[in-house]
Amino acid sequence: MQVQFRYEQIADTIRTAIISGAIKPGDKLRSVRGMSSDLGVSQATIFRAYFDLEASGLIESKPKSGYYVCYHPITPDLPSKTPFENQEKTVKNADLVKEFLSSLNHPDVQLDFGLAVPAPELLPLAKIKKSIQKCYLNDPVAAIGYESVAGNNQLRRQLAQLSLSWDKSFTEDEVIITNGCMEAVALTLSALTQPGDIIAVESPAFYGLLQLMESLNLSVIEIPGDPVAGISIEDLKETLQQKPVKAILLTPNFNNPNGTAIPDQHKKELAEMAAAYQVPIIEDDINGELYFGDKRPKTIKTFDQEGWVIYCSSLSKTLMPGYRIGWCIPGRFHAEILRKKSITNISTSSIVQAITAHFLEFGRYEFHLKKLRNALKTQHLQYKRAIYDCFPNKIASSNPQGGFVLWLELTKSKDALTLYRNALQKGIRIAPGQVFFTHSNFKNYFRISFGAPFTSEIDDAIKTLGQLAKNL
Amino acid sequence: MQVQFRYEQIADTIRTAIISGAIKPGDKLRSVRGMSSDLGVSQATIFRAYFDLEASGLIESKPKSGYYVCYHPITPDLPSKTPFENQEKTVKNADLVKEFLSSLNHPDVQLDFGLAVPAPELLPLAKIKKSIQKCYLNDPVAAIGYESVAGNNQLRRQLAQLSLSWDKSFTEDEVIITNGCMEAVALTLSALTQPGDIIAVESPAFYGLLQLMESLNLSVIEIPGDPVAGISIEDLKETLQQKPVKAILLTPNFNNPNGTAIPDQHKKELAEMAAAYQVPIIEDDINGELYFGDKRPKTIKTFDQEGWVIYCSSLSKTLMPGYRIGWCIPGRFHAEILRKKSITNISTSSIVQAITAHFLEFGRYEFHLKKLRNALKTQHLQYKRAIYDCFPNKIASSNPQGGFVLWLELTKSKDALTLYRNALQKGIRIAPGQVFFTHSNFKNYFRISFGAPFTSEIDDAIKTLGQLAKNL
Repeated sequence: MQVQFRYEQIADTIRTAIISGAIKPGDKLRSVRGMSSDLGVSQATIFRAYFDLEASGLIESKPKSGYYVCYHPITPDLPSKTPFENQEKTVKNADLVKEFLSSLNHPDVQLDFGLAVPAPELLPLAKIKKSIQKCYLNDPVAAIGYESVAGNNQLRRQLAQLSLSWDKSFTEDEVIITNGCMEAVALTLSALTQPGDIIAVESPAFYGLLQLMESLNLSVIEIPGDPVAGISIEDLKETLQQKPVKAILLTPNFNNPNGTAIPDQHKKELAEMAAAYQVPIIEDDINGELYFGDKRPKTIKTFDQEGWVIYCSSLSKTLMPGYRIGWCIPGRFHAEILRKKSITNISTSSIVQAITAHFLEFGRYEFHLKKLRNALKTQHLQYKRAIYDCFPNKIASSNPQGGFVLWLELTKSKDALTLYRNALQKGIRIAPGQVFFTHSNFKNYFRISFGAPFTSEIDDAIKTLGQLAKNL
Repeated sequence: MQVQFRYEQIADTIRTAIISGAIKPGDKLRSVRGMSSDLGVSQATIFRAYFDLEASGLIESKPKSGYYVCYHPITPDLPSKTPFENQEKTVKNADLVKEFLSSLNHPDVQLDFGLAVPAPELLPLAKIKKSIQKCYLNDPVAAIGYESVAGNNQLRRQLAQLSLSWDKSFTEDEVIITNGCMEAVALTLSALTQPGDIIAVESPAFYGLLQLMESLNLSVIEIPGDPVAGISIEDLKETLQQKPVKAILLTPNFNNPNGTAIPDQHKKELAEMAAAYQVPIIEDDINGELYFGDKRPKTIKTFDQEGWVIYCSSLSKTLMPGYRIGWCIPGRFHAEILRKKSITNISTSSIVQAITAHFLEFGRYEFHLKKLRNALKTQHLQYKRAIYDCFPNKIASSNPQGGFVLWLELTKSKDALTLYRNALQKGIRIAPGQVFFTHSNFKNYFRISFGAPFTSEIDDAIKTLGQLAKNL
């Protein structure tokens, strides 16, 4: 159950009106007193709503005059679709990824737009602390012993229940706890594939997943898609008909890096296709909870009737990145993946599972998620506005409806790797688009994370980036 | 620095005298008053030493008479060496291991001798609790973010320093933190091998390692050894000369299950052999700290000059089994293994690393280890005595000088798997020897863990086991 305060409802209504263009830049909002009387709520409630909208940069107050809309809805072009080749390739950008990762946590980096995580100030540190204290006091002996391979029962029950919001119900017996979403995908790929096998992915794809496939000696077919709706179902079908694809790896809700969201109808078709071709779909739903819209998007697993979809997710993007709590719901592949978990590291840390189970039960996770979603939605607009203002006119930007990242396209002649290197000299880190393609074959894209609340330092850094892009 | 109380020194001296046979069963110990005056210590100190020896079952008090030695040193035959075949095999006992693991944590099991872990009462729960509280208060933000791939700096420094006790010095930069020792070995094998490669191991070998190799489609050459000194260096050399061995996997300090300890001179030869043949040795030193003798046994890594030895260990057998903190010191293979870690699960849980680093710095780990070693040394004698008293005359037993487990051999006609199944009916769990061989080819061995303090319930369970063995 999602509780929304009255002021939040009011702010949401006005926000929607502004973003949709129903009220325009320069329009004056009704006075606090007038609005209060119209809606039959206290003036404090209206003040709080206006305060939030002002903090989001949507309205501004003019002394002795009132509140005015100051948000110009911007509609940059969407990044273009890369061509479809229907050709398996081995991943060949390890050196580039290594260069990119070597700047992670580098002391010279002042502002890291390259890491897709929520800033710590967006996380419920106090409530997690309480869960740490409670779970240890409750049962220190249980927390020190080996946990079962599949994981803490209570935690699996809590995680199974999260699937109710995407219209599907599971028991704890169907869930396996892993060290983050990456491990869920890594165990799945190593359980289901052999070196040389072909995996189909949406392109661009998260560099971590590409590196994983490279490391397992898998071949990759990159299938680009619509900049809004993601992977092309027709192209995927063509690939399945022509190639011995061993598995399909997708991030249907807010693909990293380009933020595409596969529509529910396509998700249904994908689930049916998996069953028809008997090809497992590995579904990475790590961003599924971070939607900007009215309701939780469904998953491919929602439509999975015969267990061909291996659902993978984690709490790393919503609650505690470093704790490494992920899980999978492997359908018909449960036994194989459980065995891989057992021989890889026996089980996930017992104490971290106990802490997390306690938080999910008592920590008001849904309340936290709601605040986090609102923060990300606002930050997304703020970052996009700043980029639009500072970058060369021809920049194209994704319009994600969830997640952490913007996918940006420079004009063809510009090289994002040079932009990355030049920005690093100024203490600013971005993710060059090259790391998201098997062969770094497309050079004019880059990714910016908006996980940190917008500040004047961030505004300045984006100005610097814009200048560097102009100079390329 | 190891601090030993005076009463402990006195108890140690008397224990050595008893076990070596210098004083014999029935011999009367000097009175408390007389001993106190001889040694110039308080009577309370002597009482405490006698109390400890009595608790270990080495002496007994007779009312109004004094303390008498009651320990009969027992010398059962050592288990026999299995034949050497010099033939690679794929591991074929997955079903049996599955059957064995399915009884883990089963509610009907009253006494589990099948799990090689220290009982919770032997672990420093209060001190760990303190570290949990401290590390969270110190820096909640650091503990929630992603840890670096190699792991927490402070923890790596603490773990690197542990190697000083085995005569080698490393910096934190040489250490990679993993989710337990199994993950250290799993990452190493998957970084260094391809399906079909041949791995040489000491036989018998820990079933988890055999299952791991099966899962990676590796072939295994089992090399048996001396029941005290472990793997035969000559047989290993013959194998290296005749077969394209890709790696050697050894547990030189108290091999699981048969407790063999490779002598330092052999360790040196092994390190030299690895360099000469350019074949990496994966050294599992998980039991290295749990020695019963006077000093820490060396490792193969001690003698590694050119980085061919990948040292793997964990705190799972000494401090906190379920926390999953292990590490490796990979020598020349550092980059490959770090990359595998990164793509498998990014990094090990930040908060567990912070807790563990705090404990190692402030929790008096060496003090805890000393108590744990003493407890295990005593338990080892108690269990062995009980087995000797209750089992058929012809039982052979390993004589481990460290670790947790006894390796027992029944007469050839008896089947340990039947013993395992029959014992399970009575709520007692043992490890059938079959799980420790690639093809379950030797049927009359089993493994008993002595990780739990000896009690009358354990005594009774061993009596039951003995009766079941006689009935086979």
